[in-house]
Amino acid sequence: MSNLNKLRKRFSELKKINYLNNLLQWDQQVYMPDGAINDKSNLIKLVSKIYHKKLTSDKTKELIKESEKIENLNLIDSAILREAKREYEKAIKIPIDLVKNIARTSILGYNAWKNSRKKNKFTIFKPFLEKMINLQKEYGDRLNIGKTRYDSLLDEYEPGMSSELISKLFTILKSKIRDILKKIINSGEEIDQKILEQKYDPNKQWEFSINMIKSLGFDFNIGRQDKSDHPFTVSLSPHDVRITTRVMENYFPTCLFSTIHECGHALYDMGFMKAIQNTNLAGGASLSIHESQSRLWENMVGKSEEFWHFWYPKLQKIFPKNLNHYSQENFYRSINSVKPSYIRVEADEITYSLHIILRFEIEMLIFKDQINISELPELWNNKTEELLNLRPPNDSYGILQDVHWSGGAFGYFPTYCLGNLYASQIFNHILQKDSEIPKKISNGDFISLLNHLREDIHQYGKIYYPKDLIFQITSRELNPEYFIKYLEKKFFHIYAIK
Amino acid sequence: MSNLNKLRKRFSELKKINYLNNLLQWDQQVYMPDGAINDKSNLIKLVSKIYHKKLTSDKTKELIKESEKIENLNLIDSAILREAKREYEKAIKIPIDLVKNIARTSILGYNAWKNSRKKNKFTIFKPFLEKMINLQKEYGDRLNIGKTRYDSLLDEYEPGMSSELISKLFTILKSKIRDILKKIINSGEEIDQKILEQKYDPNKQWEFSINMIKSLGFDFNIGRQDKSDHPFTVSLSPHDVRITTRVMENYFPTCLFSTIHECGHALYDMGFMKAIQNTNLAGGASLSIHESQSRLWENMVGKSEEFWHFWYPKLQKIFPKNLNHYSQENFYRSINSVKPSYIRVEADEITYSLHIILRFEIEMLIFKDQINISELPELWNNKTEELLNLRPPNDSYGILQDVHWSGGAFGYFPTYCLGNLYASQIFNHILQKDSEIPKKISNGDFISLLNHLREDIHQYGKIYYPKDLIFQITSRELNPEYFIKYLEKKFFHIYAIK
Repeated sequence: MSNLNKLRKRFSELKKINYLNNLLQWDQQVYMPDGAINDKSNLIKLVSKIYHKKLTSDKTKELIKESEKIENLNLIDSAILREAKREYEKAIKIPIDLVKNIARTSILGYNAWKNSRKKNKFTIFKPFLEKMINLQKEYGDRLNIGKTRYDSLLDEYEPGMSSELISKLFTILKSKIRDILKKIINSGEEIDQKILEQKYDPNKQWEFSINMIKSLGFDFNIGRQDKSDHPFTVSLSPHDVRITTRVMENYFPTCLFSTIHECGHALYDMGFMKAIQNTNLAGGASLSIHESQSRLWENMVGKSEEFWHFWYPKLQKIFPKNLNHYSQENFYRSINSVKPSYIRVEADEITYSLHIILRFEIEMLIFKDQINISELPELWNNKTEELLNLRPPNDSYGILQDVHWSGGAFGYFPTYCLGNLYASQIFNHILQKDSEIPKKISNGDFISLLNHLREDIHQYGKIYYPKDLIFQITSRELNPEYFIKYLEKKFFHIYAIK
Repeated sequence: MSNLNKLRKRFSELKKINYLNNLLQWDQQVYMPDGAINDKSNLIKLVSKIYHKKLTSDKTKELIKESEKIENLNLIDSAILREAKREYEKAIKIPIDLVKNIARTSILGYNAWKNSRKKNKFTIFKPFLEKMINLQKEYGDRLNIGKTRYDSLLDEYEPGMSSELISKLFTILKSKIRDILKKIINSGEEIDQKILEQKYDPNKQWEFSINMIKSLGFDFNIGRQDKSDHPFTVSLSPHDVRITTRVMENYFPTCLFSTIHECGHALYDMGFMKAIQNTNLAGGASLSIHESQSRLWENMVGKSEEFWHFWYPKLQKIFPKNLNHYSQENFYRSINSVKPSYIRVEADEITYSLHIILRFEIEMLIFKDQINISELPELWNNKTEELLNLRPPNDSYGILQDVHWSGGAFGYFPTYCLGNLYASQIFNHILQKDSEIPKKISNGDFISLLNHLREDIHQYGKIYYPKDLIFQITSRELNPEYFIKYLEKKFFHIYAIK
């Protein structure tokens, strides 16, 4: 076997070991009995150890070195080598003790965070957060990718992205979104939400969600849906992509939109070209690109008028008592009502980005050593007030609301918002190419849209970096104007703003 | 860390890798989407490769050698070392190509067997069976444990067992069981089975099975039940033991008794003492001992008068339309009716052993090179006629009925029958110690019995070999008389034989 083939095989095996970890994670959140939690953590640790040992071995180093000598690699092979090298070089920069320390602090931090949030006492979480921040600073310094240590952290989720670029994009976004929000609030229009807060039979909600994603192209021959506390998508192979949802009897949007969101992720993971399915390229280009797919389906499709033109009559038949008194227009407006709130995960399409910008600004201060941990809750509340005109009544509605920091996921939040930007730029491009898409959606044809996404994005997996991918598709760099225009068009119409 | 501790840790990690494989197997049979089958097989292969590499490494050899120098090892450590050495020495005897060849033939053979059974054509399966038999002959010869190559194969499932001893036990059993069967048939009594063949709501059957095993001591904090085509039990850790069942709307015993059977296996796996939970001793002493637990609960408890004294009134409340016209006596007789049939898995407690003896006798001939593959179907049918006075109308009712041989599991069948022998000898012993057990069962106390089993068997895991374990518990070697007496007492009463 040639060195290149050996490299391919080695990273294909690493990918498989990663799938094992994914299976463990899936099982833990979906079916594992409670008493197995410690054993399961130990299993996950063991699999990570096996992975790390194989990744950082001399054999890996040698195969990369030898493969680099080969000239004129084709597109796929050069991407395989690039990703292999990237992962290897990052891994050897981090001492194993730091990896272990982060893992340990993550487990302790998660419990402290849960407890802290429950008791609404930031002081419980504070020492763990402080320790994690210090570990992540060390981690970022050691990685030393990009101009700042925060750039190093970003690189974990978003290869090639810089905090400088995000700052630029978010500055524009913040100003424009605040303008839109002001106009919406000034319109004086309040949209009734009662339609969504009736009792909806959980079994029927579940069935509806299954039928819905089937129509979107989710292939149950290579995927499944289950229930979990926090919805997620996970790949156990390119032919085994699983999503979860949560069903709330008294709030209809939870199950429906989380299902569509996760389905958007899954469609990406189900669509890699055959040539890369068994390689280290079988994954999303980045978290933002992944998020662009879930958000495109959830918001730009799932919360569009065309979508409900097709689905609402069907939904009415399933829930006649709940919906016969409401028109499609009522329903459409309800799922799109805008109202500033404390909690990110409950935010509408307009205010969502402001929640993310808040987190990004705080993370920047933290990693530039410009703020003390003890000042964070106050800063959070001030920024919420500044951006959303609301002051969290306590830390559970403020700094304690998200789990991410307890696990050391700094640099992660921006990807949610970048996902919106990518989604709207891509969607705009597809609408240019195929102006019939809205009409097709009204008629229940979602596969035409899926085929565009497959062709432009899904098939490539990690072959291209995000910035190259977006340029290849749209012939432009990432630009927030598409998202802003999308929001203005949609919400100015809903709120009758001229 | 001492060499002994390193050895413990190494085999604890191997055990964990094994749990990974178990999780993959569980997932494959319970929730995996169909399209993932190839990827999943490759994952299982990778995990087996990781396992084999670690097991057969020089490091393992060295740690065993160094640990053997330690004097006065305690009971647990010497068993850990014994099992480690046993596994290592077996593994290095088998060339990796043979392992791979068996795995490959197993996959092809399984498909051929399914096809062969469906089309009722032995010739489709024949070449694969022949190849597998030749591979297993080589495997047995290379292992070279015991007096014959069949003994080597037996050792995979039943350490320390010999074909000589099985022959001796089965000769007695065969003669005695045929006597009992003759008497039952001569009694002229035919038991009505209609009671079991009504429509029973699958959801209620499922719920009943869950409540049933809760009462038997199945701990849902460290276990769960799911559905699969073929019921099985699997451990993903000592705190994560999973069983599956199958529900048939028109045949009540399927779900109920397979649930109790698997629960019996699970109770064993849930009951290892803390000191061995994280070691290579966290498993059943052998397949027979494991089977003794499932059969004790399924047959000796689950099909006893006392058991239904407690449960039948409850069952009547759940299925009033089905059961109000039938007495507890009717029900008890129905689940215990004896009737020779072609299919092993449908056999009653009396004829079951004859099905096993048939298979054992054929396997002996095969591995002594005393029969040609092409003669097997005829031999099978002749033996069925001899033992059960029935001639299979075709091979699907004969030699093609079981999956085992397609996967190379020769030497496996006898453990089902040995399980009955162990079960009755152990149960007899417990009844001697605690004569109140039947009364306790009538009153719905199943935990007293479980506690005896935990004390005598479960806690020890693999610390003792089967033959030492049975002697330690009952102060006698394995003896078929307990099983024969149990059968005579129970079935002579049911069939009013004096």
